[in-house]
Parts: sequence; structure tokens; C-alpha cells
Amino acid sequence: MFQLHPRLEQDTVLVGKFDLCQVLLSKDANYPWCILVPEREGLSELYQLAAEDRNQFIAESNRLSKVMEAVFKPEKLNVAALGNVVRQLHIHHVARYTSDAAWPQPIWGKVAHIDYQAEALNERLQKLQIALSGSGFTVA
Amino acid sequence: MFQLHPRLEQDTVLVGKFDLCQVLLSKDANYPWCILVPEREGLSELYQLAAEDRNQFIAESNRLSKVMEAVFKPEKLNVAALGNVVRQLHIHHVARYTSDAAWPQPIWGKVAHIDYQAEALNERLQKLQIALSGSGFTVA
Repeated sequence: MFQLHPRLEQDTVLVGKFDLCQVLLSKDANYPWCILVPEREGLSELYQLAAEDRNQFIAESNRLSKVMEAVFKPEKLNVAALGNVVRQLHIHHVARYTSDAAWPQPIWGKVAHIDYQAEALNERLQKLQIALSGSGFTVA
Repeated sequence: MFQLHPRLEQDTVLVGKFDLCQVLLSKDANYPWCILVPEREGLSELYQLAAEDRNQFIAESNRLSKVMEAVFKPEKLNVAALGNVVRQLHIHHVARYTSDAAWPQPIWGKVAHIDYQAEALNERLQKLQIALSGSGFTVA
């Protein structure tokens, strides 16, 4: 049975679920930063997704990307499957701004984590949940 | 008509072409580092790929990923569409090792570029071209 890696569980909050992927929001308030995790055991690389999951993943990644553009109006999206530290397949979707703490560098390992204020976190979660709501996305 | 961004042209050498993407090799010898560039004008985000191109992109990315695993035997692949500096859609595929200069951090902006020796570059290019050869990949 699929279990989210404890490190991902610790560093994120659950936004909701697509048919294939969990949608997580990073607790790092530096950036609007979502993470998709396909609920499949034992995957560490994108190419390991089964053919039918691959199409579903792309649909979910595109949906999330468009929602993040609409909600956050970033300068650029950064989409990345890295996994050097946490091997469980997870795909970062980060909304980037020319004014953000790491621009134009990638965000990983650049500046110290900042906690959200509880209210700001809830507001961001709700915005995402509302924008994602509809076919194939459910809030847990 | 599609034209490769001058910065990508400067920083890479052409390995060959799939049906959709150019396959480039970064001139940075720190890492086995390939870049896929869909030959489509005006794209900056993955979700902007047309539906038929999207499937083709995934097939080409998976093919390249498997070849890089077979040729370079890395600890992990890093696959990323960033584009904060060069907006033209390009997708990094990097073979990572626990012994490499940036591990476990992402590679971007970590350590200074190292030039390949001419012979090492040619050898790497040829290995990739041989491993990628076959349906849908052609050396220019």
C-alpha cells in the first residue's frame, strides 16, 4: 500500500488528491510551492510510471501548473523531479517571481525555510483547493 | 521557424534529434547533462505543449532517461524544466552521483563550469549517439 515518505509528510500539508497524485503544499513560505506525488509504490524516476499513469500524470501536472499560474501569477514555473534526498518519486511545481529570495537560481538549498503564518497557510490552501476543484480533484 | 536560443547554443553541443526535440549535451563536464528542446516556437512551460507533442515529449524524455541510466549508471536522474534565465522551453536531464560536485543539491549555480577535454567530449557524444540510435533519433 502506498505510503507518503515521512520527510514529505513532515515538510508539506495535503492540498488534496487527483486520481493519481497527492497534491502537497510545501510549508516553506518563501515560494508558492506544490509537490505532486503519484500514489504508486517503489517509483523513483518519472520514466518508471506505467504508460497509463504517465498520461494521467501529465494531465495532473498540466492542471496544477495552469492553476498555479492563474492563482499566483508568477513570472515562471519551475517543474522538477529531483529526488536526491527523498527517493520516493515527487515532482516539484514552484511559482517563481523575479522578486523571490532565490531568483533566478533554482530554489533548492538557496535560502532558509520560512514558516507560514497559520492564516496565510490556510488562505493559500483554500485558494488552491477552490481553483483545483472539479473533475478528478478531491479535498481529503 | 524554430531557432535554438543563443545561450543554449553556446552552452551545449548537439547530440542529435528526436522527432520533436533536439538532444543537447551541456559543455559542463561536471555532470553527464543532457537537455531536450522541443522544436516549437514560443513555448516556455511544459503545459504549453500541444497534446500530441506532449505524448511525444514524454516518450523522448523517457527514452533519453533510460539511455542515460544505461550509459552513465547514475545514482539518480534529475529532470527539470526551469527556464528562469533562458525562457525557451528546455528540459534538463542530469545523471547524478553521490560523488559529484553538487550532491545532494541540484546542480544549478553550485560549482564552477569545467570544460571537457576534446577527447572526453567526443567519447561522451559518441556513446550517447550510439545508445540513442534507432527509431526516431537521428544524428545531424
